[in-house]
Amino acid sequence: MSAVPVIHAAAVTRIPQPYLLFLGNAHETTFMKTALGLRDWARELCVGEYRCDSTPISIGLPYMDPATAYRAGARSLVIGVANIGGIIDPSWIDYLVRGMEAGLDIVSGAHSKLRDCSPLQKAAERTGRSLINIRVPPQGIPVATGRKRSGKRLLTVGTDCALGKKYTALTLHRELRSRGIDSDFRATGQTGILISGAGIPIDAVVSDFVAGAAEMLSPDAPANHWDVIEGQGSVFHPSYAGVSLGLLHGSQPDVLVLCHEVGRDRIVGLEGYATPSLPEAIELTTRLARMTNPNARCAGVSLNTSRLDESAARQVLRETSAALKLPVADPVRGGPELGELVERILGR
Amino acid sequence: MSAVPVIHAAAVTRIPQPYLLFLGNAHETTFMKTALGLRDWARELCVGEYRCDSTPISIGLPYMDPATAYRAGARSLVIGVANIGGIIDPSWIDYLVRGMEAGLDIVSGAHSKLRDCSPLQKAAERTGRSLINIRVPPQGIPVATGRKRSGKRLLTVGTDCALGKKYTALTLHRELRSRGIDSDFRATGQTGILISGAGIPIDAVVSDFVAGAAEMLSPDAPANHWDVIEGQGSVFHPSYAGVSLGLLHGSQPDVLVLCHEVGRDRIVGLEGYATPSLPEAIELTTRLARMTNPNARCAGVSLNTSRLDESAARQVLRETSAALKLPVADPVRGGPELGELVERILGR
Repeated sequence: MSAVPVIHAAAVTRIPQPYLLFLGNAHETTFMKTALGLRDWARELCVGEYRCDSTPISIGLPYMDPATAYRAGARSLVIGVANIGGIIDPSWIDYLVRGMEAGLDIVSGAHSKLRDCSPLQKAAERTGRSLINIRVPPQGIPVATGRKRSGKRLLTVGTDCALGKKYTALTLHRELRSRGIDSDFRATGQTGILISGAGIPIDAVVSDFVAGAAEMLSPDAPANHWDVIEGQGSVFHPSYAGVSLGLLHGSQPDVLVLCHEVGRDRIVGLEGYATPSLPEAIELTTRLARMTNPNARCAGVSLNTSRLDESAARQVLRETSAALKLPVADPVRGGPELGELVERILGR
Repeated sequence: MSAVPVIHAAAVTRIPQPYLLFLGNAHETTFMKTALGLRDWARELCVGEYRCDSTPISIGLPYMDPATAYRAGARSLVIGVANIGGIIDPSWIDYLVRGMEAGLDIVSGAHSKLRDCSPLQKAAERTGRSLINIRVPPQGIPVATGRKRSGKRLLTVGTDCALGKKYTALTLHRELRSRGIDSDFRATGQTGILISGAGIPIDAVVSDFVAGAAEMLSPDAPANHWDVIEGQGSVFHPSYAGVSLGLLHGSQPDVLVLCHEVGRDRIVGLEGYATPSLPEAIELTTRLARMTNPNARCAGVSLNTSRLDESAARQVLRETSAALKLPVADPVRGGPELGELVERILGR
């Protein structure tokens, strides 16, 4: 455990918006999770797409060169494609330099750091632009204090990875805003950070500071303000439970929404690990949350029913809700179930 | 969560032994936790002490210059004193360079990296010695797989930080060895790493990889071999629970020993957080451990009774054992209670 005091210097990572999405030299969309995610979840943030001249690929946005995009409002060129190994492809460099010359900062979620690429570093110095790596946490994250903060907090939690925690948080944030409630979406992963323009990549934080990062991510706020925090992993996941627990403790959520996918009975990517039942997941996650917020409660379940047709999905939502005696909604489908979940979140 | 595969390259950090302890220019022993810890817990690893000429301080070891220490067997010069801020004091540099010239590697637990100090880096290149920072985890730690490993594992867990998890693990490791049982002590913190000469500073690992680091720390072993793993923090600690849970899951312990200090009813250093009761701590920690090892069991409690006199201590050990129906021992006091705990660990 860290004995040496750490200076509070940092804020969360902030990214100039809107974006020009860079597709690199890709010939297929397999490694374009970031670009596709932004197009699908934050279309209004994407002024256009840009790519190497050699590639014919498009994700359906208007093609723009960096200068045109800057005039259209763009302030960052986001690398929306990942290489195997997470490196910067040499063929991209001229295009990224052109972006900086047009006034755009460069944003990357790759494991390798942009500033380790000498031509990019030089161009950034020459043009005065920033190289922003959204996998690099801000400096100076403190150890968590456990101090109770003002304002209200919701955290999406899960039975596994990759089943809708980000999407659920974004949807609930919009639902709160649409009811005139003051709400912020607090991003903890790459795509979430790009969507919100700020956040902390929680899984890249040194373990001693994860809860501290979560405290920093959702600071004191007015009493009726909601922070809707993007969850990560699951306290039941053998690889990532520590990340999830640190995020849970530091977030001090008043309200949990449990995310699950219909039919997901195994932890994906591991052998021999079952996902927990919904009652068990609710009970244990709430119990762990109460260590830092004794009033934490689970308001309901966000159920990913994308594998089902509409009528089967509505039936599963009804049956699960009846069994748990809690609102159960699929945020993608919306409908009255989603309204019930929001009402329960608000304690109405 | 990390989508990009990480290469298995690393081993744990390894430190050449025995040591010459460097006391710097300190005038009091307040910041000498590392040196005092090594002197008290691993006297046989310390050939002597060394210091700046300007300081009169001693921790009671024979004074040796580096050349004499090398002839006496020393292979590392361990910086046993911490500065405020964890930096390398400029007044130390000549002494550390002299150590390298005599054939000693330099070992530091400071936050600042030795190789960022240019005179040290140059001397290391010139002499062919290593600069070893035990707060820097090895490269290439993988994401945990959750795969069951062969051999037996014991993890010390706690109700709080700093109440005897390292000491308990070291004691139990020695007790097992004294019974002819093949055992390794697996270190997860700075002092433990110096004592054992190897280990991983688990709280300095990026959170996504904590469980993976724990898996790497105690690899497959013969069926009757025991790894006795040094615990960190507590799953009840609002700042560090994520570290503790990642270590717990990756360690896959067959046996837990819960460490507590008599009278420690508040989490130290935080306001408003109580330590859990012993039954609650046993129940929850065991439940969480069973996620990756369904056979995990708590063999008993290690109770730090240093605030009590001998007769009061023995009484508390007896009463606690009767209440929990488990062996309860103070490893510092030893005695029949410790024997009972070891027997229960071995399932006898």
